[in-house]
Amino acid sequence: MDSAMSAHPGDMLALAGVTPSIGRIPVENISSLAKGAFGDRGIIPLWFGEGDLRAPAFIGEAMARAVADGHVFYTHQNGIPPLREALAEYLTGLGDRSISPDRITATTSGMHAILMAVRLTAEAGDTVVVIDPCWPNAGAITEVLGVGVRSVGMDHSSAGWTLDLDKVRAALDATVRSVFFASPANPTGAMIPIETQAALLNICRARGIWLIADEVYNRLAFGVRAAPTILDHTEVEDRVLVTNSFSKSWAMTGWRLGWMVHPPSVGPTLAMLTQYTTSGIATFIQHAGVAAVREGEPFVAFMRGYCEAGMAIVCEALERFGRVRLGPRPVAGMYAFFEVEGMPDSRQACLTILDQTRVGLAPGAFFGPGSEGLLRACVCRSPADLREAMGRLEKMLG
Amino acid sequence: MDSAMSAHPGDMLALAGVTPSIGRIPVENISSLAKGAFGDRGIIPLWFGEGDLRAPAFIGEAMARAVADGHVFYTHQNGIPPLREALAEYLTGLGDRSISPDRITATTSGMHAILMAVRLTAEAGDTVVVIDPCWPNAGAITEVLGVGVRSVGMDHSSAGWTLDLDKVRAALDATVRSVFFASPANPTGAMIPIETQAALLNICRARGIWLIADEVYNRLAFGVRAAPTILDHTEVEDRVLVTNSFSKSWAMTGWRLGWMVHPPSVGPTLAMLTQYTTSGIATFIQHAGVAAVREGEPFVAFMRGYCEAGMAIVCEALERFGRVRLGPRPVAGMYAFFEVEGMPDSRQACLTILDQTRVGLAPGAFFGPGSEGLLRACVCRSPADLREAMGRLEKMLG
Repeated sequence: MDSAMSAHPGDMLALAGVTPSIGRIPVENISSLAKGAFGDRGIIPLWFGEGDLRAPAFIGEAMARAVADGHVFYTHQNGIPPLREALAEYLTGLGDRSISPDRITATTSGMHAILMAVRLTAEAGDTVVVIDPCWPNAGAITEVLGVGVRSVGMDHSSAGWTLDLDKVRAALDATVRSVFFASPANPTGAMIPIETQAALLNICRARGIWLIADEVYNRLAFGVRAAPTILDHTEVEDRVLVTNSFSKSWAMTGWRLGWMVHPPSVGPTLAMLTQYTTSGIATFIQHAGVAAVREGEPFVAFMRGYCEAGMAIVCEALERFGRVRLGPRPVAGMYAFFEVEGMPDSRQACLTILDQTRVGLAPGAFFGPGSEGLLRACVCRSPADLREAMGRLEKMLG
Repeated sequence: MDSAMSAHPGDMLALAGVTPSIGRIPVENISSLAKGAFGDRGIIPLWFGEGDLRAPAFIGEAMARAVADGHVFYTHQNGIPPLREALAEYLTGLGDRSISPDRITATTSGMHAILMAVRLTAEAGDTVVVIDPCWPNAGAITEVLGVGVRSVGMDHSSAGWTLDLDKVRAALDATVRSVFFASPANPTGAMIPIETQAALLNICRARGIWLIADEVYNRLAFGVRAAPTILDHTEVEDRVLVTNSFSKSWAMTGWRLGWMVHPPSVGPTLAMLTQYTTSGIATFIQHAGVAAVREGEPFVAFMRGYCEAGMAIVCEALERFGRVRLGPRPVAGMYAFFEVEGMPDSRQACLTILDQTRVGLAPGAFFGPGSEGLLRACVCRSPADLREAMGRLEKMLG
């Protein structure tokens, strides 16, 4: 067994002195699971939400230019004006509504955008509802911030993953301050129909609670320029926060840059929260972001096609495998999410599969209570790598 | 009056829906105060903890090389091994004890190191004691994290700033989980004698509470290679967290990189906290950090001399001014911290001085209850700029 994957989430180190609410959060996640495998070329790493593409060279060149131009000092805590302007124009061009720069705050990552969104809306004693299956970090940050979290599971049938708004309504007791969802979703690739999103917004409006929409996969909806956005149904001062990242659309995972769309009135509060959590983003990385947004559309289109092609390769293989059950093929995102007969413990399944095939997968158990027994494979990878990975899996699951 | 400085901290926007504990934190800080002045060349900006030097070119070159080499993907949440190893060797060479790489976690900034240190040690209902005057962000992050904070003021006399351990002892009720201090301190430049630091550690040990030492100015102690460090008195598994940053010693404010020294046992917990707050640091910036640590000593020595020369210019001027009272000259750090006769409201004083002289200063009121009435000036700037700034101030304060 790979030493990188030997720690069990139940194994707690003797963490003398660590405050109990932090000591209780499992230290295992996809990143720690894969820790020993960074740089191991024998492993095909389909576990992360990260492809094998590098961001196009012009983005690095823009960054180098910014360094040479002296953009190496402290700057605006909501992000540099050129980045906020570029993102405002970009979003205005993607959706039906005009988005102004004072509604944009740049963040240290998509994660950091979610941290600020959760903290802006909730505190100790409050609850955030998370629509599952979901990126585990959204639930985990509520624990770090001392806020309660409640899972509402999407329904899983042969038709795929669907959201029942009555289940959301039933979860909204008086402690709930915000509802978090992602569409397209990670790990399911499911898109919540925009009419359902709009109805969810109305439910939130009626209760005065916030809607937090993670749109990090919005450019990876196959066959369309972008997935529908809740911003098309949002008034400027609606309690809506939309989080996003440069990681997926522009292949900038290792660059650490994201953003949030928010009501203008909370801009100063977000600047304050930025100051007291990370004190801002490297100025030259923000200039790289400007280049990505302004000149990156051809790359984004390529990225979308790359994921769509990868999805076809992986799904064709999985559909052939005797032990695998895959629902309808995802129409967005970078993941296939599937069950393996006889492997109900997804974490153990990933360990066994890694051990036997040297293919890294992510356990469904990490993505909420409703997705134990499923495994996630990233499809944003070269056809050759994906075919090799599927060939290895076929011997075991075929 | 400059429009950038027109908002009063008491002015709360109508922040409908923002959770009360966040709505109560003032949005004004040095960064927001200076917001409208970024890039205004008419203003001499002595308000930030930032000089006018750029990091040496080899650091940017190391970063560009890392991008070209493909270090643009997700990586270890405690930091890349070469950075942890470089920092471990660096710290081992600075102090009396050997520091191993498993005691180092790289962070998105010095701020982010403090965020994790506070959250690792405390939760709702707990209290963190902060030794004031202090960088305001240390107290503010406790509020963001929903943790209580209690100020213990250093004593201020004609002899300078001194820490009375009896006052610390008196503050340590059963809710206190950690004590935060900085030495050399911001804004005072005061160094807490290492014997006093060691005694403080013993007080914490006896109560099983954590000591958080911010050593961000440790290389800017004039006339010595480095300020004494609490690490020289720390056993490996002592409850001690030492935070630091690349911002000051290597002039890398805009690069956003810091680190923490911690017991090895909490490394996995810090990786988890990193994952759920920022999801890590740009890989290529970590490579820039390796270059800074490995090859930056001549620059650090230059930086120290630059600050010492700046301190002499500013203090000579301030000591001449009729309306200014300055204590003993600071022997470390990048700030002069002084009173102006007839200007007891430090925020108003900064606004008036900015308006009349176009010199940006930071109000003592931001640095804790004990330093209202004082003003902070950064001395890490070219002699020409500092002389020009002092000349402008002399007309008003001379």
